Amino acid sequence: MQRSTGTVPAGTTASDQISREELQLATRNHGMPLEALRFSVTPLGLHYVLIHYDIPVVDPAAWRLEVDGSVDRELSLSLDDLRRRPTVTRTVVMECAGNGRARLSPRPISQPWLLEAVGNAVWTGTPLRPLLEEAGISDRAVEVVFTGLDRGVEGGIEQRYQRSLPVEEALGDDPLLAWAMNGEPIAPQHGYPLRLLVPGWYGMASVKWLGRITAVHLPFDGYQNVMAYRYRQDPGEVGEPVSRIVPRSLMAPPGIPDFLSRRRLLPMEPCRLEGRAWSGWGPVTLVEVSSDGGRGWTAAELEPPDAPYSWQHWSLEWTPPAPGDYELCCRATDATGRTQPTDPQWNLGGYADNQVQRVEVTVGEGESG
Amino acid sequence: MQRSTGTVPAGTTASDQISREELQLATRNHGMPLEALRFSVTPLGLHYVLIHYDIPVVDPAAWRLEVDGSVDRELSLSLDDLRRRPTVTRTVVMECAGNGRARLSPRPISQPWLLEAVGNAVWTGTPLRPLLEEAGISDRAVEVVFTGLDRGVEGGIEQRYQRSLPVEEALGDDPLLAWAMNGEPIAPQHGYPLRLLVPGWYGMASVKWLGRITAVHLPFDGYQNVMAYRYRQDPGEVGEPVSRIVPRSLMAPPGIPDFLSRRRLLPMEPCRLEGRAWSGWGPVTLVEVSSDGGRGWTAAELEPPDAPYSWQHWSLEWTPPAPGDYELCCRATDATGRTQPTDPQWNLGGYADNQVQRVEVTVGEGESG
Repeated sequence: MQRSTGTVPAGTTASDQISREELQLATRNHGMPLEALRFSVTPLGLHYVLIHYDIPVVDPAAWRLEVDGSVDRELSLSLDDLRRRPTVTRTVVMECAGNGRARLSPRPISQPWLLEAVGNAVWTGTPLRPLLEEAGISDRAVEVVFTGLDRGVEGGIEQRYQRSLPVEEALGDDPLLAWAMNGEPIAPQHGYPLRLLVPGWYGMASVKWLGRITAVHLPFDGYQNVMAYRYRQDPGEVGEPVSRIVPRSLMAPPGIPDFLSRRRLLPMEPCRLEGRAWSGWGPVTLVEVSSDGGRGWTAAELEPPDAPYSWQHWSLEWTPPAPGDYELCCRATDATGRTQPTDPQWNLGGYADNQVQRVEVTVGEGESG
Repeated sequence: MQRSTGTVPAGTTASDQISREELQLATRNHGMPLEALRFSVTPLGLHYVLIHYDIPVVDPAAWRLEVDGSVDRELSLSLDDLRRRPTVTRTVVMECAGNGRARLSPRPISQPWLLEAVGNAVWTGTPLRPLLEEAGISDRAVEVVFTGLDRGVEGGIEQRYQRSLPVEEALGDDPLLAWAMNGEPIAPQHGYPLRLLVPGWYGMASVKWLGRITAVHLPFDGYQNVMAYRYRQDPGEVGEPVSRIVPRSLMAPPGIPDFLSRRRLLPMEPCRLEGRAWSGWGPVTLVEVSSDGGRGWTAAELEPPDAPYSWQHWSLEWTPPAPGDYELCCRATDATGRTQPTDPQWNLGGYADNQVQRVEVTVGEGESG
């Protein structure tokens, strides 16, 4: 799947170096430093965040959720109206569809994630389906469009951030209208006061600063559904839409880092490797670890998920055979048989590349002090 | 002060593009998206964070603060011991000494901040001075060394993060041992369970994950005091230590952004420009705004600080004279007469460059919709 750099498609670059436009995005948005994989629930401020435009400042007293379009009864709900509805709390892993983009070559030009665009949070809200049923969603509705309050220009088009779900997904058991994250009102950067949460899907589906829900008769042709977030090899192609999260496992880098290179230094003694694994298609059933760059693999101890869409802990004791340099890798396989490839999964937007993580470590001569 | 790119010192680059090593740092650490200047107190998760090594996972029950060195009585305190002491709460602006580094040319290679490494938080803790007095700090002590629990390699030297303060600063009114930020236990990435807070100084002085305080007879020669965080033009130079924050004002970019370029689009109508200003040397007494790239300046309305080291709000109504492109700038001057230059302030580490912010905006033909 990897392109040769002889033909660099528009919107990508063959350069190893990051442009000023990518840096502007990297300094605004942020990932989860991978040592935070040690936390079962990602503490607030460490969960990844990707903001297309600006964080809107929302007055919660004036804010309403409008439900309209192909429904029998339009609804207009305050935050208190929503909080009076049945409440559920779910632990859900969320990952950006662009996670891993900056490892690709040629590199799609957008937020340059390496591997850290993930988090596992506890979300509280009310299920979406009963609300749509109460509005009386039409049998003719094919999709449900979710509109955020954030506004900007993308691909030359001025827009509010909008994404649709197929009606059968919107009426599924999982989607939630969430007002709390880790037990606190959702932080401004994560969608205050209300965020759609679509467990199992990449983060682009979980519309932040939600203001409007609209049932529609025709497939939605907004920018984020039709232009962005599609698997395409060429700009002319229609492509398949990005939806559920493909399997990934990540390792908390062992030992201590060098500040600048982030290379890891380990003492010559047994070391417990650990991390998390997840998939939006089903539970992860196998995590394997390699200490030789992916030639040999050993199954790790894998815990079941705490909740259906939570990430899963894995660990493996590793004894370095001798001082020297090693390339540690991990790979997850889920209950549907989907697994992580060794090679990049290239597409024009740089979405869902779940090639295995590679952690360079140097094992020293001595034991830990 | 700006170097020509003909002579690029070691540890810097003349390239406009960002290296993989800088990107690794940019995806771990994070700034405050500048629209968050609209919040008087920076919400948790939006305050900048810069971590030299890894975030340590600390067991609060096992954690102790040790006070030793040139003191009459060594102390060993639990978190509860500290919480039983006199408690103060202070709103303090914090800025990374490297803020602005990625705007310099040649660019020092480290965390590539543009302008967003800042935050204004409410910190709660106990004053440092009474604790040092209780330990009986020796008259012979010249500095006090603060040691964090985070460990890594920097400049080839394995170390815990350590910084010293001159004894007269450590015994001043301002330094705090803080256990809460915005009313919550300090988040892991900001120094849980205890952080030294040195109001008015760049963030490098406010040691996170504090574990030990040591009074010393001789000036401390640790890496972060002697090698890093010094104003130097050449590597051979001793240089002056980085200490207090020089004045800066920042503007919340008006209008709406383009996703990739972050260029701002404004309607053809009056617009209230606003932002914050601060200095570690004294209150800001003047903020001026330019709409022509720094040729003409107009004084903004400036509020006094809520607290001695809090940032200050400023605003100015601006009516674009005609559709077109403008370069908006702002500059702060403090009570000591220190101000922001129009040109870069270059040094080898890329510290304390407070050249004015430049916000490129395009005013359209129409009014807002």
